[in-house]
Amino acid sequence: MSDASSLDALVDALRRLPGVGAKSASRMAFHMLQHDREGAQLLARALQTAAGTVRHCDRCNTFTEAEICNVCRDPRRDASKLAVVETPADQAALERTNAFRGYYFVLMGKLSPLDGIGVRDIGLHRLMERALDGQVSEVILATNFTAEGEATAHVIGEALRARGLTVTRLARGVPAGSELEYVDLGTIAHALVDRR
Amino acid sequence: MSDASSLDALVDALRRLPGVGAKSASRMAFHMLQHDREGAQLLARALQTAAGTVRHCDRCNTFTEAEICNVCRDPRRDASKLAVVETPADQAALERTNAFRGYYFVLMGKLSPLDGIGVRDIGLHRLMERALDGQVSEVILATNFTAEGEATAHVIGEALRARGLTVTRLARGVPAGSELEYVDLGTIAHALVDRR
Repeated sequence: MSDASSLDALVDALRRLPGVGAKSASRMAFHMLQHDREGAQLLARALQTAAGTVRHCDRCNTFTEAEICNVCRDPRRDASKLAVVETPADQAALERTNAFRGYYFVLMGKLSPLDGIGVRDIGLHRLMERALDGQVSEVILATNFTAEGEATAHVIGEALRARGLTVTRLARGVPAGSELEYVDLGTIAHALVDRR
Repeated sequence: MSDASSLDALVDALRRLPGVGAKSASRMAFHMLQHDREGAQLLARALQTAAGTVRHCDRCNTFTEAEICNVCRDPRRDASKLAVVETPADQAALERTNAFRGYYFVLMGKLSPLDGIGVRDIGLHRLMERALDGQVSEVILATNFTAEGEATAHVIGEALRARGLTVTRLARGVPAGSELEYVDLGTIAHALVDRR
């Protein structure tokens, strides 16, 4: 792009961000250096601070700066319910519904044999410990309804049921506000089977 | 996303990158913290180094770490030809053709009245100085063939012609390797007018 080696290094570093290719990285570097050096410095500091301080909650495994995250420290929650989600973003989506007042366990990923991600990488051992604390009576599997999310839910569900826990899964069905005509067949079929 | 304030700060900082919205920023932050902290530190250092060392070439205005960039320092180039481009990426595209051996002036932008970018922001004054060094006899306008690029070429061309310089524009026409059937009408019309 130019004879500035630190610019080339910046483009290379930006390409490590997910979803950023060579052209995007060049465009980002150009924008930050030409129009927003303050933003570049801000991003540099934010990256260093986050990489240095963000850790995993000892109880639920989500990102936090403390040993135990705010949600896990909240005593007003229902200790008999534990929801298992893939990512902090999924947890945030559940929280926004205000329909769940139990605790969480965040896998920070999903089973993905093709990418070499097995049960150890999603912390199944730690989840078992957490779920068998004597207070949890129901584990709600809230992994995504993708092939990998379903496989993850299946494996976790089997392991938890073997230890005598009640395991449930988020209902599959027709999304709120949608017209049947535009809903895919698999979803309608599931909604029929799970009708109530 | 979580109760880690340094994580929220990182998501906000990532949103300053062009083309990155709230969801992408969250995904990037999650990926870097979960899977690539080394990449996060690398990006932080690259941002700081680049923001601290990258400057503009005194002659052609492109990004460089020296006072004068490598291209401008190359004495084997043809000093009678000066190509005007919008960005270092455009300059790199021209260089890859090996069809131009003159020098460059990089505007680092284009005229865009709606965004408040006027002739001062694209360094017209510095371009005039550069073009009137006594050696340049032809200025080749190689701004993009967009509405803003064309307007930029028009304004620069008028100013340079008023000072007695020969001003040319990259030819518009049918792209190499393309079939007429799939080329837009405007391009064919221009190719007809500029036929040789």
